[in-house]
Amino acid sequence: MIKIAVIGFGNIGGGLVELMERNKTLIARDCGCEVDIKYIVDIRDFTGHPLEKKIVKDFNTVLGDPEVSVVAEMIGGSHPAFDFSIAALRAGKHVVTSNKEVVANFGEVLLKTAAENNVAYLFEAAVGGAIPIIRPLRESLSSDNILAVNGILNGTTNYILTSMVFSGKSFDEALSEARALGYAEADPSADVDGIDTCRKICILSALAYGTIYPSELVPTEGIRNITPRDVSDAAGFGASVKLIANTRKTSDGKIMISVAPRFVPAENPLYNVRDVFNGILVSGEAVGDLMFYGRGAGRIPTAGAVLADIVEIIKHMDSKQLPPPVWVRGGSETLADAASEKSRFYCRVKGRRVPDNIISGKHIYSDGETSFVTVETDLAELEKQLAGYEVTARYRFI
Amino acid sequence: MIKIAVIGFGNIGGGLVELMERNKTLIARDCGCEVDIKYIVDIRDFTGHPLEKKIVKDFNTVLGDPEVSVVAEMIGGSHPAFDFSIAALRAGKHVVTSNKEVVANFGEVLLKTAAENNVAYLFEAAVGGAIPIIRPLRESLSSDNILAVNGILNGTTNYILTSMVFSGKSFDEALSEARALGYAEADPSADVDGIDTCRKICILSALAYGTIYPSELVPTEGIRNITPRDVSDAAGFGASVKLIANTRKTSDGKIMISVAPRFVPAENPLYNVRDVFNGILVSGEAVGDLMFYGRGAGRIPTAGAVLADIVEIIKHMDSKQLPPPVWVRGGSETLADAASEKSRFYCRVKGRRVPDNIISGKHIYSDGETSFVTVETDLAELEKQLAGYEVTARYRFI
Repeated sequence: MIKIAVIGFGNIGGGLVELMERNKTLIARDCGCEVDIKYIVDIRDFTGHPLEKKIVKDFNTVLGDPEVSVVAEMIGGSHPAFDFSIAALRAGKHVVTSNKEVVANFGEVLLKTAAENNVAYLFEAAVGGAIPIIRPLRESLSSDNILAVNGILNGTTNYILTSMVFSGKSFDEALSEARALGYAEADPSADVDGIDTCRKICILSALAYGTIYPSELVPTEGIRNITPRDVSDAAGFGASVKLIANTRKTSDGKIMISVAPRFVPAENPLYNVRDVFNGILVSGEAVGDLMFYGRGAGRIPTAGAVLADIVEIIKHMDSKQLPPPVWVRGGSETLADAASEKSRFYCRVKGRRVPDNIISGKHIYSDGETSFVTVETDLAELEKQLAGYEVTARYRFI
Repeated sequence: MIKIAVIGFGNIGGGLVELMERNKTLIARDCGCEVDIKYIVDIRDFTGHPLEKKIVKDFNTVLGDPEVSVVAEMIGGSHPAFDFSIAALRAGKHVVTSNKEVVANFGEVLLKTAAENNVAYLFEAAVGGAIPIIRPLRESLSSDNILAVNGILNGTTNYILTSMVFSGKSFDEALSEARALGYAEADPSADVDGIDTCRKICILSALAYGTIYPSELVPTEGIRNITPRDVSDAAGFGASVKLIANTRKTSDGKIMISVAPRFVPAENPLYNVRDVFNGILVSGEAVGDLMFYGRGAGRIPTAGAVLADIVEIIKHMDSKQLPPPVWVRGGSETLADAASEKSRFYCRVKGRRVPDNIISGKHIYSDGETSFVTVETDLAELEKQLAGYEVTARYRFI
């Protein structure tokens, strides 16, 4: 019998408790033993709740109980999630989490502490919700050279963009709709300004390249400025607008990370990732392009990913856990300037005049503005060619 | 230092040898030790080959050498691949393979033998080429109830169907093109008649449900009869024609498996899987829909998947391998009749008259034939409604 503690009885924590009850038999078969939730830690009052007897307010109850071998940190935010997690690891308890903020901010410290204490720190649910992406990057792709990762990592923004395409809504209308459906928070800025996406790409980048960069160093642009004209032009150029997180290794060995809306052409597998779904496109030197697609959020899907981590830990409990990856914290000196990336650009300028030198294919004139797609170029060259034009929109192609 | 043997120095075996040389440093970092190919077994003559000194003709050399701990079976076909694999497992050597035929035909025996000898039998490359699908099904999804798996599992047929869509070619023209590009064999029947796809869905079904069914029991229809009219009608109904392998659990606890061309609507993530790519859509009760997408074949991509299996084995070598899944061989008594599946159908009949009772939406009249899409129904009801019509084409929707 393995005893675990769930810290935080909110949305995901509640989903985990529900799912572990529902799949009890499957879990016991997979783990080779029963798995029981001994404590649920939450500072709120749950008097009268059916699980009242398991609920405790003080995390120290868990910390001091040697019977608890796995802690599921389902709190969210940096503190006290970090403090509880590191204390649990130091006490020789395995920790699983769905908390991208704590992994992005303190991942290297938590992984090092896990390694020092011969326990696991797993976070499959922190990126891509239900999608198994952390484990494939750690295991299936670890002996390949990862050339790049491109991802649609935030369900809320992808829902809004999909709604703008298929219902012709403005950003504000689509955001209201997402709120009404419970897909967007009252304060949507972590989603629509790309902050959540940025944390997730920093984690994927660390898994691919071993270095975790602070989110603040990553150029991050959200989707607030996307207009119906951008969306309809994208369709006109055979593409769709998506909030794309990108990490890649440059030819001089630096890492380039960015979060921005991009035009995704129809032949790219991310093109058709709709609604609240996420898609993560990994380009490996040997394996080529791989895409992982699924529900990026949601109570039960995310809990399913947390549960997979718990089961993995228990399966390996009487032998040796795989050693945690070693991350170092990176600074701006090893980070390439995202503006130097060469790509095609979608541009829109006032008037009918266009910079013929850099245009590839047709242009679209409507409502006093002309839009076009450029050949592959860099930002410096683009800005040179656009001197003298009043630019109203500019997005990179993936 | 870990010593391995590669059995079969053909396309994939050669790719594995090349990739292991190229990624030597990454592999050593991941495994925590050097990994060396001690033998390459092939009955052909490689006099003068740079690796001549490693090449041996007799598999018994490998079997009798206690230094070899991992055997990569890259032969293909049932025999001697099965015989070599089981002998290696009995000798306490781990075995990895990309051979779907041997896994589909003898998987339960090989896994049992692996378990009895405390070694691993891994076959990530046998389904979906470079795509990590076996490991996610075994690990990330093992504690979820798998409702269904739908897959585009054969690159050759998907290339042919894509070419029919985008170049307007006939089946024969598209097949010739695929041959010229090296995507189709001189005898293409294993691909175009769905045999390869059938073996792969039997393996995925066993991973999802624990029972491996003989391919002969699975209704299997290839793509030889797909016409340009089918393809253009699919577009007219907002869908694309794909060779879809399906396995699911029915409400009475049986397993239903089928391989057939199906119409895939645009909102399904498999719709946009093009060319030689594969896509595998797994529907789990907790995690919802997940899709895994990537190169389903190719020398280096497939070798990359084999390498991931080798690295996994070596990482766990000084502790305990995860126990192999337990499969039982199933018979027709637990297999549901695939004809009883309810679905929408695409139908085409001679003339202008259509069975109004079962039609959903528009119909398309051209060249003396009328095509339409039905409401969800079963085959018995469909055939009743189509009595008196001359049916020229009939495919299920996914």
